[in-house]
Amino acid sequence: MTLYFQDYSGGPNATVVQITDQPDGLLSFTKFGAIFCTDDPITEEFDPSSAEIARAQGLYVTSALDGTNTHVLISIVFTNEKYKGSTLEIQGSSAQFERVREVAVVGGTGKFRLARGYGIKIFIHSDFVISSIGKIRERID
Amino acid sequence: MTLYFQDYSGGPNATVVQITDQPDGLLSFTKFGAIFCTDDPITEEFDPSSAEIARAQGLYVTSALDGTNTHVLISIVFTNEKYKGSTLEIQGSSAQFERVREVAVVGGTGKFRLARGYGIKIFIHSDFVISSIGKIRERID
Amino acid sequence: MTLYFQDYSGGPNATVVQITDQPDGLLSFTKFGAIFCTDDPITEEFDPSSAEIARAQGLYVTSALDGTNTHVLISIVFTNEKYKGSTLEIQGSSAQFERVREVAVVGGTGKFRLARGYGIKIFIHSDFVISSIGKIRERID
Repeated sequence: MTLYFQDYSGGPNATVVQITDQPDGLLSFTKFGAIFCTDDPITEEFDPSSAEIARAQGLYVTSALDGTNTHVLISIVFTNEKYKGSTLEIQGSSAQFERVREVAVVGGTGKFRLARGYGIKIFIHSDFVISSIGKIRERID
Repeated sequence: MTLYFQDYSGGPNATVVQITDQPDGLLSFTKFGAIFCTDDPITEEFDPSSAEIARAQGLYVTSALDGTNTHVLISIVFTNEKYKGSTLEIQGSSAQFERVREVAVVGGTGKFRLARGYGIKIFIHSDFVISSIGKIRERID
Repeated sequence: MTLYFQDYSGGPNATVVQITDQPDGLLSFTKFGAIFCTDDPITEEFDPSSAEIARAQGLYVTSALDGTNTHVLISIVFTNEKYKGSTLEIQGSSAQFERVREVAVVGGTGKFRLARGYGIKIFIHSDFVISSIGKIRERID
């Protein structure tokens, strides 16, 4: 499964806000301790106008003293017909200056109960983010 | 196992505080990016005066731009004799306006080491919350 | 595997900052709702000048109304040659006034994909923290 995160850090349709102070009015992604809240659309294709299949909703915090890593805590909340209401729960460390990153699937709900993937590989493109979820263990009843 | 969360969002014995600014002095559960800290008693029965068996302690953040979803990160810290000190670790997305929700058990400690439930179904009643934990996988030694 | 967390809550090389307000200028570890961001070096030996093998990066929040428990959300990001870039993902409740605590390994990335330990036992010494990770389940391909 490939997920295309459409992440907008500014403009009228921004999908991320900074929760901690922004003395200069700008988002400070590399400031140790800066916390952000995100609600990114996830689309079926690379094209941001393609159908939305989920939202990536949660928190992240710049967690390295030198600003390189972000600690990520999000739910991927599916909105498409097939998985509506089901979620994948993600925790991980995202190396902000690397183009390939990996975060862990720590659980899931609905159709993804007991899901645990090999992690999600994140490939960064200029304006948005592609994620490719590794094998998800089958639901165990 | 059924857990009855006794959640008080106001009054002298409030069990939740808002960490982010409250310009109007009220809790703003539907504001994107609002962060809350909670320490809810969990009781044995529906009756709030029944015996406490655990506390639900952690964070949640309003994580949908339209205010509908909350990203939840809590520990259920048992305080009763049987499980004292053991925890269940919860991550999930809670649909604030739905009466039935589901969050994931992503781990546990003490007697719940390696616990992973099917998730916790949350049934909302007017003044409090009932949660019913699905099957917890047996501890694997 | 034993990890030695070198945690400095003050001084020019502090490895933790408080994100919420500090009206008196001091860290307030027992204040309900206080949020902290941490980036602790983890060393090979008890001696803080021994080789760094990882960093403990993430968030914690004082999550008990009486200040006794902290809800912990961190990534252990390995920096040594053997595990460079791999992580263990931790969630748990840390009893601040106990010398032995336990938090859960909820996932991992890289060489620790699908890792789930019995939890991490934390033994507190005066100036720093020793953690001993229990058995990590073998990676399952």
